[in-house]
Amino acid sequence: MAHSDAHVLIVTCASQAGLVAAWSGFLFQSGANIIEINQHADLAESRFFMRIAFTADAPPDQDMLAAIAARFDAHWQLHLPRERQRVLIMVSKFDHCLADLLYRWRIGELAMDPVAIVSNHPRAATQAVEIGSIPFHHLPITRDTKHEQEARLQALIASSGADLVILARYMQVLSDEMSSALAGRCINIHHSFLPGFKGARPYHQAHARGVKLIGATAHYVTTDLDEGPIIEQDVERITHADTPEDLIRKGRDVERRVLSRAVNYHLQHRVILDGHRTVVFPD
Amino acid sequence: MAHSDAHVLIVTCASQAGLVAAWSGFLFQSGANIIEINQHADLAESRFFMRIAFTADAPPDQDMLAAIAARFDAHWQLHLPRERQRVLIMVSKFDHCLADLLYRWRIGELAMDPVAIVSNHPRAATQAVEIGSIPFHHLPITRDTKHEQEARLQALIASSGADLVILARYMQVLSDEMSSALAGRCINIHHSFLPGFKGARPYHQAHARGVKLIGATAHYVTTDLDEGPIIEQDVERITHADTPEDLIRKGRDVERRVLSRAVNYHLQHRVILDGHRTVVFPD
Amino acid sequence: MAHSDAHVLIVTCASQAGLVAAWSGFLFQSGANIIEINQHADLAESRFFMRIAFTADAPPDQDMLAAIAARFDAHWQLHLPRERQRVLIMVSKFDHCLADLLYRWRIGELAMDPVAIVSNHPRAATQAVEIGSIPFHHLPITRDTKHEQEARLQALIASSGADLVILARYMQVLSDEMSSALAGRCINIHHSFLPGFKGARPYHQAHARGVKLIGATAHYVTTDLDEGPIIEQDVERITHADTPEDLIRKGRDVERRVLSRAVNYHLQHRVILDGHRTVVFPD
Amino acid sequence: MAHSDAHVLIVTCASQAGLVAAWSGFLFQSGANIIEINQHADLAESRFFMRIAFTADAPPDQDMLAAIAARFDAHWQLHLPRERQRVLIMVSKFDHCLADLLYRWRIGELAMDPVAIVSNHPRAATQAVEIGSIPFHHLPITRDTKHEQEARLQALIASSGADLVILARYMQVLSDEMSSALAGRCINIHHSFLPGFKGARPYHQAHARGVKLIGATAHYVTTDLDEGPIIEQDVERITHADTPEDLIRKGRDVERRVLSRAVNYHLQHRVILDGHRTVVFPD
Repeated sequence: MAHSDAHVLIVTCASQAGLVAAWSGFLFQSGANIIEINQHADLAESRFFMRIAFTADAPPDQDMLAAIAARFDAHWQLHLPRERQRVLIMVSKFDHCLADLLYRWRIGELAMDPVAIVSNHPRAATQAVEIGSIPFHHLPITRDTKHEQEARLQALIASSGADLVILARYMQVLSDEMSSALAGRCINIHHSFLPGFKGARPYHQAHARGVKLIGATAHYVTTDLDEGPIIEQDVERITHADTPEDLIRKGRDVERRVLSRAVNYHLQHRVILDGHRTVVFPD
Repeated sequence: MAHSDAHVLIVTCASQAGLVAAWSGFLFQSGANIIEINQHADLAESRFFMRIAFTADAPPDQDMLAAIAARFDAHWQLHLPRERQRVLIMVSKFDHCLADLLYRWRIGELAMDPVAIVSNHPRAATQAVEIGSIPFHHLPITRDTKHEQEARLQALIASSGADLVILARYMQVLSDEMSSALAGRCINIHHSFLPGFKGARPYHQAHARGVKLIGATAHYVTTDLDEGPIIEQDVERITHADTPEDLIRKGRDVERRVLSRAVNYHLQHRVILDGHRTVVFPD
Repeated sequence: MAHSDAHVLIVTCASQAGLVAAWSGFLFQSGANIIEINQHADLAESRFFMRIAFTADAPPDQDMLAAIAARFDAHWQLHLPRERQRVLIMVSKFDHCLADLLYRWRIGELAMDPVAIVSNHPRAATQAVEIGSIPFHHLPITRDTKHEQEARLQALIASSGADLVILARYMQVLSDEMSSALAGRCINIHHSFLPGFKGARPYHQAHARGVKLIGATAHYVTTDLDEGPIIEQDVERITHADTPEDLIRKGRDVERRVLSRAVNYHLQHRVILDGHRTVVFPD
Repeated sequence: MAHSDAHVLIVTCASQAGLVAAWSGFLFQSGANIIEINQHADLAESRFFMRIAFTADAPPDQDMLAAIAARFDAHWQLHLPRERQRVLIMVSKFDHCLADLLYRWRIGELAMDPVAIVSNHPRAATQAVEIGSIPFHHLPITRDTKHEQEARLQALIASSGADLVILARYMQVLSDEMSSALAGRCINIHHSFLPGFKGARPYHQAHARGVKLIGATAHYVTTDLDEGPIIEQDVERITHADTPEDLIRKGRDVERRVLSRAVNYHLQHRVILDGHRTVVFPD
């Protein structure tokens, strides 16, 4: 359920009694109308996670929200209706994820504003994709210029006001500094089912091992390569008759599906990041 | 998440402000600890559905619950921890669903007490299934004795104190009287994806039409044959090479999977029936 | 396994001994190298279907093939390597299938030549989709002009030399004459799982019935509306929380996936049409 | 398509011209009627694999088959109709796979003869499973008695004439000697998606990593622990709300489904083992 005219309140804290009552009670008194509430109590870890979507004539008083949060020592965020995140999309030569994200954006499926497309290759490499008036930036990279290229990238993120960076089959590994700077706001699509075939050429590895399913994983980027918190995964059935080239083709479908779902969940504030794990409330 | 030591409160009413706050506030004051809350606001129909699982030293005051319900004109139910439903299972000759239900019950997956197995065929027809000490009742039926047989069945349901009747590939259509008497507490597995191949021999129909997926549907029984509120569905991929016999074999897997999930959801009070629709909060 | 440099031989006839031996023996003597053989013997109907993909320096002697076919009273077709079908795509206002087909064509996934895009709406209705230099034809239609519009369409099919017509969410029903004229070379995507919700607004029907899976069906168009031979189907899991709008959104994904698979199978001669049924050898 | 009255011929060799023609030609001359032919040409590795199911009044002349095989330097096997493999099933404490295999055997889904059930625990550990008259052998094992226990196991395999050993959640690692002795005729169900969470407690690992799908893998046992040739895999969708206990429960369903499919493929000679890879022709 996507409601473009809903506020979204996110709460994370230690498990304790009275949480739902306190927040929902306050929202009720503020004149809010709850249209969706998702909650997860991790009993083993004693952690509590909640997402409340509500409509209201005016946003609830933020001081009051802060006061409730202080009482429970809770981490909270309030997202206003029709808030649209500014998104920077990075790509190398494979453009199926880029094409899919832009198509979904055009027809209104993804509530985002693409502010820049960045590639380590010239525009010609992805020219089959119509990008309209979205600025394209060619930021080439070599082993020697990685530091410099990332500085330019960071300047671009700052100047474009990007809230979210999407690595849409961007084939360069971000440095630890870059990964840390983008913690919780950089989503990567790993063209494999994780854990599993980490590293290079996963489809060739899968073919050699005779696996019967290939997959893809969308995760937040961390300094731990291929180990970031997982947002979404899916698989596709394959057979011995599939060559590595067939797997690459079939992989494209699952990659773009998984990435677009993950981006959508993120944009709707349906993903709560808590240390190494994610709590995802799918729509 | 299944919690055998949790209370479960179910609430259904018209959408209105303050619902979550009122119920969760009362539970908090009663000393309850909410471990799972699922809510669904059907905005088109202005209907509200909630399931709250909570632990508490003692059940909350039922008069108070009734008072809150009265305020919202709500329908409510409170289920106590470790409450186990008494279940009567009906079967004809195909015993894969019966075998699966009993196995899951034996290893503790289904929190139910089987109080009777009823068949329109003698015990010999399903003798491959070990039923231990569960009473087996042979209630044969012919066109002429249907009324009489159902009277015996109803007596058995009454005397065994069965809360739930499971039609585990019972191949007789219940009369309208019987269906009405069991409204909301009789689950059928339809060996087809509904809507779709209603009526007899769906796998032969599927083969003739060249469909690529077969399915199964678990639903509550109503007087509307094959049209009862749907609890769970699933499909299995098939090909032109599958004979009707192959489809029957592959169908068994999806039938037993779908039925056992539906029964589990029902036993955990995860299904809210509202007119012709169901709200299902899967575990 | 797709081999752009392979010949494909399709054979359909009554089941009889010696079929595989005769055809494969002849191909061997002709110097062909079989790289993929798919065969289906429908024992109930006594029908035999075979697809052989092979490489060869030159095409096998067609007179000899005809002679073998005559011996078995077989229907046969030989498709040469790198043969690309000319494709005419029809669309109304929903352009997700069109966009997907064109993207897959651009990156080389679909071995076809799009020769025309036809819509009953002006170009503006689908302008989000980049069509490059493919001719766009606006053929408006009203109840009164249906006959006339189809005449123009048929002229266009003839003049463009289209081998295949794809109804990519074209929301007009073809007349019986048109359907017959395009028998076996017109693929439709039905935005529903068939059999099931035939007719209008299937997603609203699905929502009302509380079904747990929605699907899509790609089939050849026949005069039997929504009953043509099925090429491919797939489903997506849904819940009570999905509004009809959510179902439409989720439906788009399964529709475009199913249609592109079906088109790919057709283009690779992996679908054998036999009366009302299809034999599909997936890649 | 399962045909209990069919011969099955398996051929493996280097890719070369004339293979299909030679074998199918000979079968035709022998009066055989081919009902199913599956072939796979691995073009990258230049390997050829074929499975032919055929009916015939009498088995084809084995000297002639050997002569054809010699011509192509092919490995071949002929399996006679109604041949049933003798199967020894090993289990520890989790009995869901054992229960499932025996149920499928009883209703005729698995064409095998269970000749022994072996456990490292006493019969009491799996007493919920009805084993009828199948001999049960308790072969306890400790670190010190592993060699000895495996000697007893090997004696039992020999005396019972077991063709196939199924590790149905047998929680002991076979020694290298034992694994080698059973090469190609011992199937294990790994309670995880491989590659992925190797080693102990995969469901706890999956929960900690926040993965969204859990799986199971059926493979032939080799000396390479968890790395044997894969026969079948499948997955089940999970969420953050699933505790490790929930994952274990959901895992049982996918484990038993994957193992029974793999066993069925093996019994029908639908799996061709070639070095480290498998070619699987599903029914």
